[in-house]
Amino acid sequence: MPERSPLAPAHFPQMPPVAGVRLAATACGIRYKGRTDLMLALLDPGTAVAGVFTRSAMASAPVDWCRAGLKKGRGRAIVVNSGNSNAFTGRRGRESVRRTAQTTARLAGCRPEEVFVASTGVIGEPPPADKIIAALPALRNSATATAWNPAADAIMTTDTFPKGATRTASIAGTKVVINGIAKGSGMIAPDMATMLAFVFTDAAIPPRVLQSLLTQANARTFNAITVDGDTSTSDTVILAATGKGPKHRKVTRVGDPHLRDFRAKLEDLMQDLAKQIVRDGEGAQKLVTINVAGAASEAAARKIGLAIGNSPLVKTAVAGEDANWGRIVMAVGKSGEKANRDKLKIRIGGVVVARNGAVVPGYDEAPVAAHMKTRDIVIDVDVGIGKGRATVWTCDLTHGYIAINAEYRS
Amino acid sequence: MPERSPLAPAHFPQMPPVAGVRLAATACGIRYKGRTDLMLALLDPGTAVAGVFTRSAMASAPVDWCRAGLKKGRGRAIVVNSGNSNAFTGRRGRESVRRTAQTTARLAGCRPEEVFVASTGVIGEPPPADKIIAALPALRNSATATAWNPAADAIMTTDTFPKGATRTASIAGTKVVINGIAKGSGMIAPDMATMLAFVFTDAAIPPRVLQSLLTQANARTFNAITVDGDTSTSDTVILAATGKGPKHRKVTRVGDPHLRDFRAKLEDLMQDLAKQIVRDGEGAQKLVTINVAGAASEAAARKIGLAIGNSPLVKTAVAGEDANWGRIVMAVGKSGEKANRDKLKIRIGGVVVARNGAVVPGYDEAPVAAHMKTRDIVIDVDVGIGKGRATVWTCDLTHGYIAINAEYRS
Repeated sequence: MPERSPLAPAHFPQMPPVAGVRLAATACGIRYKGRTDLMLALLDPGTAVAGVFTRSAMASAPVDWCRAGLKKGRGRAIVVNSGNSNAFTGRRGRESVRRTAQTTARLAGCRPEEVFVASTGVIGEPPPADKIIAALPALRNSATATAWNPAADAIMTTDTFPKGATRTASIAGTKVVINGIAKGSGMIAPDMATMLAFVFTDAAIPPRVLQSLLTQANARTFNAITVDGDTSTSDTVILAATGKGPKHRKVTRVGDPHLRDFRAKLEDLMQDLAKQIVRDGEGAQKLVTINVAGAASEAAARKIGLAIGNSPLVKTAVAGEDANWGRIVMAVGKSGEKANRDKLKIRIGGVVVARNGAVVPGYDEAPVAAHMKTRDIVIDVDVGIGKGRATVWTCDLTHGYIAINAEYRS
Repeated sequence: MPERSPLAPAHFPQMPPVAGVRLAATACGIRYKGRTDLMLALLDPGTAVAGVFTRSAMASAPVDWCRAGLKKGRGRAIVVNSGNSNAFTGRRGRESVRRTAQTTARLAGCRPEEVFVASTGVIGEPPPADKIIAALPALRNSATATAWNPAADAIMTTDTFPKGATRTASIAGTKVVINGIAKGSGMIAPDMATMLAFVFTDAAIPPRVLQSLLTQANARTFNAITVDGDTSTSDTVILAATGKGPKHRKVTRVGDPHLRDFRAKLEDLMQDLAKQIVRDGEGAQKLVTINVAGAASEAAARKIGLAIGNSPLVKTAVAGEDANWGRIVMAVGKSGEKANRDKLKIRIGGVVVARNGAVVPGYDEAPVAAHMKTRDIVIDVDVGIGKGRATVWTCDLTHGYIAINAEYRS
């Protein structure tokens, strides 16, 4: 196991049960020795499901399966394995997913389309359907309401810590629970970083509303982080609402004011998980928060933030603790979004370094250099065009990243 | 000085004079000690000039100046300094360029708008106009037809070798000369890689035709290379045609069949310079040629090639000599261009590794692994959509890149 990231939280959070959700994890021997690699979540009848997936044109077989299954917005089980991504596996890959879903459906008493499957790990290798199918009956029998930490462990690849988060939200005065687990950008040679997250609530929210809530929150959380700008073939976020919590006022549309707190807490939880993924970025030594303001729109602000967050020159400067604001100017310039060079303003660690298209008069680098030595780097950029704002999180680019990714696979 | 790149050519090419072009270089003390840092090219009256520039919204003052000057398509001098990019320098930056052009114009006997200026080096620092202006008279007096190597030396920043290329082209049976020099992706803290190239011919080609030739060739050469995907605020390519060579049949339009050989040789020369830039990429140990076929268009093919060439996971795999074709699948998938997963074909070093959306049956990695140990890596990808083809060149991502770019500036 690699060393735990220096940016990891102190411990896995204490997570309460979510009524209608039971979890189990086991080791079925796909790739890792002495580690769990298969997770099953069982969902009570009536559970609504929403999902967002990789935009890759090379999407994996499980992603194709989930997209099809989502059409009805209902789900009864989620099966996730680590160690093999079942991506670029052709017909065998599709059969593997179908057989996994059929077996799970028999065990859970539902239709195969109500089973969602996610895989992360090696690309292009024969999918491990037999191992998964053999392990499913025991897994079903061991499912409990409390196995959040084991579930988060089982979906890890080269993550250095399991990722979980929990929130309580109020819908018209009734408390509901939201729990989530995720895995991040651990590289498995010969594979790439994959990001998976599974979020569960006991609230009763219809599928269409749930999908809107997820899509909106996803743009500001999982789509606002970057480790190296590469996109996996398997990225998957699933949100399940069991409706088995305390009865609350019925919600039927995404704009319902009674959903305001739920929406905020959902985004907060997803942001928490997203930042945990960045904190576990390969070789990461620093978390970088990039706040962009003054852009033409929120989407434009996010694109500028990602241009900064994906720039190897910015990321190596952070790794070198170099307050290299010139590289931030460069990254803003290359984003493809409108920015006013002669109004550009940059702050690092709260200190204004550039304003109106030039370095501030008498610029004193000392406080900025001190900030660069900390673990949490904050960059604020105002591009002087409009009112669009967004925040993006990334990590630094270090020798550790090269070492992890340039090592020949064994 | 950093060590010469292991991918550098054996020596600077022997370059003949270009009638109507005289060059000189000197050390004016901008940043580097004991190195030349200022280059002047004098062009005979009647020279046509074309240019392409960075797409950055944060373009430097010299880039703004050149864009304005290009409107008339005529030029009499090019002044290039290294050590200070005069980017993000506000009003002082604009004044510095104007004064440099005015002084050069007096010395060359032309209008300031006929002087083109390019700068590369530190960003956001006061521009060194006084030093440049003081050095110009002696520079004018020392200009010769043979100073190609000194000129290529003077525009280097952290380049490890000077870059030059020469070709002879035939226009309707008359031989003309094309010479070019370039500088590449050397990083100067606190700055970013900048790419400059200056190409000269003694052919007589009207400005509008010259601009079309340059724009077309640029798309397939300087815009088809990448070191780290970052875009400088100063990227500049200028093409000057003096018309002082042997008289040749008049050409008036870009589609003229008599320009076919010139067009091919120009692209070949620019490709040569572009590949030299990649061979001198920061930390580069391997040159990677990515041939994309089967795309919806040439532009789509280039975008897919750049997605592969910019992928940190692909580039670290090359650095690690890992035949990691799964990462190539990933990069194709994230390009945003159409690709047929189930028809995707990948060859590495000429060996087919994947076909029809899966690894080839009985895949033998040995010959591919052997190819990965060489200096020249070739990746062929067919995305199974259409007839678009393009080639992209990049280098590997190594510890050397991190070391160069994460070091605190002194």
